[in-house]
Amino acid sequence: MSNGGGAPSSSTHLLDFLEEPIPGVGTYDDFHTIDWVREKCKDRERHRKINSKKKESAWEFTKSLYDAWSGWLVVTLTGLASGALAGLIDIAADWMNDLKEGVCLSAMWFNHEQCCWTSNETTFAERDKCPQWKSWAELILGQAEGPGSYIMNYFMYIYWALSFAFLAVCLVKVFAPYACGSGIPEIKTILSGFIIRGYLGKWTLMIKTITLVLAVASGLSLGKEGPLVHVACCCGNIFSYLFPKYSKNEAKKREVRREETDHRSGEFLFSLEEVRPEDAKTLIYYFPLKTLWRSFFAALVAAFVLRSINPFGNSRLVLFYVEYHTPWYLFELIPFILLGVFGGLWGAFFIRANIAWCRRRKSTRFGKYPVLEVILVAAITAVVAFPNPYTRQNTSELIKELFTDCGPLESSQLCQYRSQMNGSKAFTDNPNRPAGPGVYSAMWQLCLALIFKIIMTIFTFGLKVPSGLFIPSMAIGAIAGRIVGIAVEQLAYYHHDWFLFKEWCEVGADCITPGLYAMVGAAACLGGVTRMTVSLVVIVFELTGGLEYIVPLMAAVMTSKWVGDAFGREGIYEAHIRLNGYPFLDAKEEFTHTTLAREVMRPRRSDPPLAVLTQDDLTVEELQAVINETSYNGFPVIVSKESQRLVGFALRRDITIAIENARRKQEGIMLNSRVYFTQHAPTLPADSPRPLKLRSILDMSPFTVTDHTPMEIVVDIFRKLGLRQCLVTHNGRLLGIITKKDILRHMAQMANQDPESIMFN
Amino acid sequence: MSNGGGAPSSSTHLLDFLEEPIPGVGTYDDFHTIDWVREKCKDRERHRKINSKKKESAWEFTKSLYDAWSGWLVVTLTGLASGALAGLIDIAADWMNDLKEGVCLSAMWFNHEQCCWTSNETTFAERDKCPQWKSWAELILGQAEGPGSYIMNYFMYIYWALSFAFLAVCLVKVFAPYACGSGIPEIKTILSGFIIRGYLGKWTLMIKTITLVLAVASGLSLGKEGPLVHVACCCGNIFSYLFPKYSKNEAKKREVRREETDHRSGEFLFSLEEVRPEDAKTLIYYFPLKTLWRSFFAALVAAFVLRSINPFGNSRLVLFYVEYHTPWYLFELIPFILLGVFGGLWGAFFIRANIAWCRRRKSTRFGKYPVLEVILVAAITAVVAFPNPYTRQNTSELIKELFTDCGPLESSQLCQYRSQMNGSKAFTDNPNRPAGPGVYSAMWQLCLALIFKIIMTIFTFGLKVPSGLFIPSMAIGAIAGRIVGIAVEQLAYYHHDWFLFKEWCEVGADCITPGLYAMVGAAACLGGVTRMTVSLVVIVFELTGGLEYIVPLMAAVMTSKWVGDAFGREGIYEAHIRLNGYPFLDAKEEFTHTTLAREVMRPRRSDPPLAVLTQDDLTVEELQAVINETSYNGFPVIVSKESQRLVGFALRRDITIAIENARRKQEGIMLNSRVYFTQHAPTLPADSPRPLKLRSILDMSPFTVTDHTPMEIVVDIFRKLGLRQCLVTHNGRLLGIITKKDILRHMAQMANQDPESIMFN
Repeated sequence: MSNGGGAPSSSTHLLDFLEEPIPGVGTYDDFHTIDWVREKCKDRERHRKINSKKKESAWEFTKSLYDAWSGWLVVTLTGLASGALAGLIDIAADWMNDLKEGVCLSAMWFNHEQCCWTSNETTFAERDKCPQWKSWAELILGQAEGPGSYIMNYFMYIYWALSFAFLAVCLVKVFAPYACGSGIPEIKTILSGFIIRGYLGKWTLMIKTITLVLAVASGLSLGKEGPLVHVACCCGNIFSYLFPKYSKNEAKKREVRREETDHRSGEFLFSLEEVRPEDAKTLIYYFPLKTLWRSFFAALVAAFVLRSINPFGNSRLVLFYVEYHTPWYLFELIPFILLGVFGGLWGAFFIRANIAWCRRRKSTRFGKYPVLEVILVAAITAVVAFPNPYTRQNTSELIKELFTDCGPLESSQLCQYRSQMNGSKAFTDNPNRPAGPGVYSAMWQLCLALIFKIIMTIFTFGLKVPSGLFIPSMAIGAIAGRIVGIAVEQLAYYHHDWFLFKEWCEVGADCITPGLYAMVGAAACLGGVTRMTVSLVVIVFELTGGLEYIVPLMAAVMTSKWVGDAFGREGIYEAHIRLNGYPFLDAKEEFTHTTLAREVMRPRRSDPPLAVLTQDDLTVEELQAVINETSYNGFPVIVSKESQRLVGFALRRDITIAIENARRKQEGIMLNSRVYFTQHAPTLPADSPRPLKLRSILDMSPFTVTDHTPMEIVVDIFRKLGLRQCLVTHNGRLLGIITKKDILRHMAQMANQDPESIMFN
Repeated sequence: MSNGGGAPSSSTHLLDFLEEPIPGVGTYDDFHTIDWVREKCKDRERHRKINSKKKESAWEFTKSLYDAWSGWLVVTLTGLASGALAGLIDIAADWMNDLKEGVCLSAMWFNHEQCCWTSNETTFAERDKCPQWKSWAELILGQAEGPGSYIMNYFMYIYWALSFAFLAVCLVKVFAPYACGSGIPEIKTILSGFIIRGYLGKWTLMIKTITLVLAVASGLSLGKEGPLVHVACCCGNIFSYLFPKYSKNEAKKREVRREETDHRSGEFLFSLEEVRPEDAKTLIYYFPLKTLWRSFFAALVAAFVLRSINPFGNSRLVLFYVEYHTPWYLFELIPFILLGVFGGLWGAFFIRANIAWCRRRKSTRFGKYPVLEVILVAAITAVVAFPNPYTRQNTSELIKELFTDCGPLESSQLCQYRSQMNGSKAFTDNPNRPAGPGVYSAMWQLCLALIFKIIMTIFTFGLKVPSGLFIPSMAIGAIAGRIVGIAVEQLAYYHHDWFLFKEWCEVGADCITPGLYAMVGAAACLGGVTRMTVSLVVIVFELTGGLEYIVPLMAAVMTSKWVGDAFGREGIYEAHIRLNGYPFLDAKEEFTHTTLAREVMRPRRSDPPLAVLTQDDLTVEELQAVINETSYNGFPVIVSKESQRLVGFALRRDITIAIENARRKQEGIMLNSRVYFTQHAPTLPADSPRPLKLRSILDMSPFTVTDHTPMEIVVDIFRKLGLRQCLVTHNGRLLGIITKKDILRHMAQMANQDPESIMFN
């Protein structure tokens, strides 16, 4: 026992020249799960090597410094690149979005707002009308008003929308199929340790950037926040290939990407919960603290870049900046909670409907025509959206308008309250506000827009174009919230002597802020769809810049989460992960069954016995036979068939590579050469060929559990340590093996789902 | 093998009446570490039992509902209680603090500010002077001015400070020794799974609340944020005893406390990193997602309570609310980074000096006179603090003043700039500001205050009174920041044609905000001391209510962290945990050595062999002999001495209780009765006494690692799974055992520290 290999593996390497690293050992196949523990050990080994060499020469010292700082360098570069890309995408999408309506004659490259900014002839109230900006009807027909020009504008709107959508889907289909969707389910899976080659490559980055602009500009009901996270991850991945520290280690690469998912300043907390799988758990399980700290730095860099590009026109770093001046009252919690219920219901409904539709797309012939589908959805969206001003405009602008409270300078239709003093004055800052005709028509249009958005978002998320879910979800919530807000406001105005309002809402006082309702609604809907919790409120804090409204937001978001969870605990991203069969162990779902490890492990009772290797009495031929006859990814190594005591674990890929390598380089390796995993060669008859030592590829510390271990503990171990497989023993003897796939299948079975939906290893 | 116990343990319970739960089995001794996996399993078992009974009757259904909601109930109650306590402490401390200076004649229970609010005779500029408020000199000597009354006031100030300090330390010493300090190191340890009975009890709560008020009022250089977290934890612990779900499960109780550490709304994110051990890791390792969600709810409740008590006089929920109106410029990053360097240096210096002083207190005779020490420190503080207005005033108020930018209404000495237009006008809102005499004298006083605070804080933190570190650290940073800010401002004023200022700081423009420098400095110092990262910036965000200043804050906090880490990676709380020898596995410290498990496990080479139990050939007498001869907390059970194959693990405490229980209840158990851990009794000679079955106390799924496992992986497993011990095997045979204490000792040894400093099990 004591000579079973006491020296640490690094010194073994030095002693035995045959055990120099075999090229290719320790890499992974596509669509396989990585082993976090192994990668972590590899990195520590490398780190120690550099550290020990550090004092040898100035060159080695420089190398160690470079190694230590390369993480920061990658993060800085990625922060810069993805900040710049985010800014570019914003600007380009804005311009192309306005191109659907017209062009700026003075400078083609200006969007509507910029075009009229440069004009001196406009007043503040009519700031979106200026002679330089020509609608298509003006340009082609020469007239701005009348049914003819309306139809012309309508037609051009549809024309551009379809062109953009067609271009986007074709680019995705031809050049980079991975560029479609939001990318967040895949990134969560990749971060949890799964290999999808090319998913974060340069082609995906390029095509995703371009098609994201096109998709947003086409007017489809989608957002760009999710895809931007994917873009940032691609940047991180590409830059990490420049550094030896990252290019060789799968776990390290994942750290960089994780940082990148955090880079957008407004969202660096969001990502803690969302992209970092769902509740900061996986992040925290697999990643050292340094990562968190670096994300922080990436956020700093990206904030800088965004600030200098300044896409939002104000010097704030958030999308929607609002300030409210009225406090809220206890009674208002009732409508806020109702908005939370709405958000939860919408979330549950959306997830079910969207998943059902995506499943149909996957399983029927219909899914074979993605281009046609995108064109169809884009056409319906454009045709229905144009007549309604609230669906025609940019969704981000719509949200901004809904969030903003009515002030004296606000020219929006939503703020057309009747003044009591002077009936002719349409815009008034009098706090005492009965709704005017503008508000009534706005309410109708908002209701129609709500229904439209709800239906279109279900069919849009999952199309083969880049599509995020944040903006549409927030828009739906904001519309619903604003409607409720105006309703409560009018209620308070006409019934201010009700006992509910009596105490705090006097005649002439400004007591209800409809914009706040819109914000609460948006947070609730976002919460219902993504099931994010604390971080969501933090994001929305940033929107308002104050702690004043924490209670309304928390009440709504919590209600939405409760209501949503009553219909199913999965968020939209988990649902899509499950739909695609990715091997993702959700940290949120608790395993509550009483199964024991022995019931989940393979081999089952009716199965053939487990394929195992013995430590010193196999020949190369027998070993190859075992490998060829089975398709397992690895094999336990035991002392002998009789004792069944476990020695270690060897990966299939490593064995194959090692045998090939030995055949090429070592003389005398034949089919009947003995293979041994022990420290010393077994005693062999004199005439036998030279034996082959495979100890260097043997994992001497495989994870084991006993057959009596409850599965809840096994699931916990897999989650927290990021395992790929675990061996099962009874009283020290090997019984079987449990892989991540076995666990996912078992969980699917327990939830009465098809276990065969888990597809990858 | 197949009859070795295939049924899950719950059905075994039903089959064998002898295995009904033995009272006392599964509890822990004081100063012991709990086993998270075991507690988790216990709770799941209970949950399943309730769920399966649910459908039996309406009563059982009600019980299951009660069980499901009791968590929320505890959290609500605790939120209410600790919110109320926090408000009460604020109000009482304010009042007693002002008592040192004088009393309100119109109403004894008013503090200075409230006293003058109610007075109608004061103008805004002289709002802190009113006839109702009498200083002690006015009351006793009848005159407000002159050296006599100054000395009288000085004397009374010292008198009250000493009285408060004396009372505080006596109360702590006599009634609740656990009430001293900030409590955060102990809470971190308790949350990580260590038992300290009484630390969160009702006496600690009561005494801590009272003495916290006294300690703050005595003018010592301490804050109340840390102790408030302890108070909230006590509330959570006390309420959790009311519910069966929590009173019986140590892991569940920790969930509640963890929620309570979060309850203060402004700090619920802070706690994610800080009290939740340092980087959200431990929280996330051991606690289900639900906890996070509940903390959120507790924050809601506490926010409500605080809002109705409203101790801060404004309707904001944060301590310091400031709004700045000037943007910052790129060049200003240099002073911000310098402030970060200062913060890091201060943090490193403070931690070293404070730990050295505390170690001296522990090891020398000096530590035996805590009352004397407190009196001495309080006396020095009071004597030195009174003459300087910046140290005499309440520290929170000082910070508020330093954060606030100078406006036209500001009467502070710090805002006495000379106006250029009119030399006689002392207070001016002209942005073009050369410093006046008031600013110069303020600068001197601030420098003295800075030195004073630095020295006194080192000696104060660790005294036997409740003491937090947030407020003093922030004060030091704010003073340094304001000094730097004014210096830069004057530099920019007198040298506005320098190339550094030329671009953006024109003559007559308001370009530097000294208040912002104070805030950045405060964040940097807090970061240096606690080594918090992201959450710190989030907290400070809340202070300013805007994302505008994220880059300055991030730059300063990151620099401070880097500089501090260069001198040692521990924050102040980890340093105190190590000083006290608590068994706390810091998630932040990476284990970078190449040790293998076999080198850390016991028995070492020279040790006697491991004390093990065999599964079926021990007698009660032999078993008791093993227990009496050793002091281990548990014993591995093996198949037989020859094979050494591992079966399970039995805890000492459980064995003792089980034997006593069997002696009392089962007939025929004698000293020579055979003890067996197997499913079926061994075949015994006919005349042997009735055997004793101990399978129910056997842990059938002990954690095992192989002797070749690198210690870095073992440490990871302990951290992530919250283990108490782990068995070491080689080729399936038991070799030894590794406990949490072994790991901590090994880590101390590797860091060249005394391994015997780890004291508890």
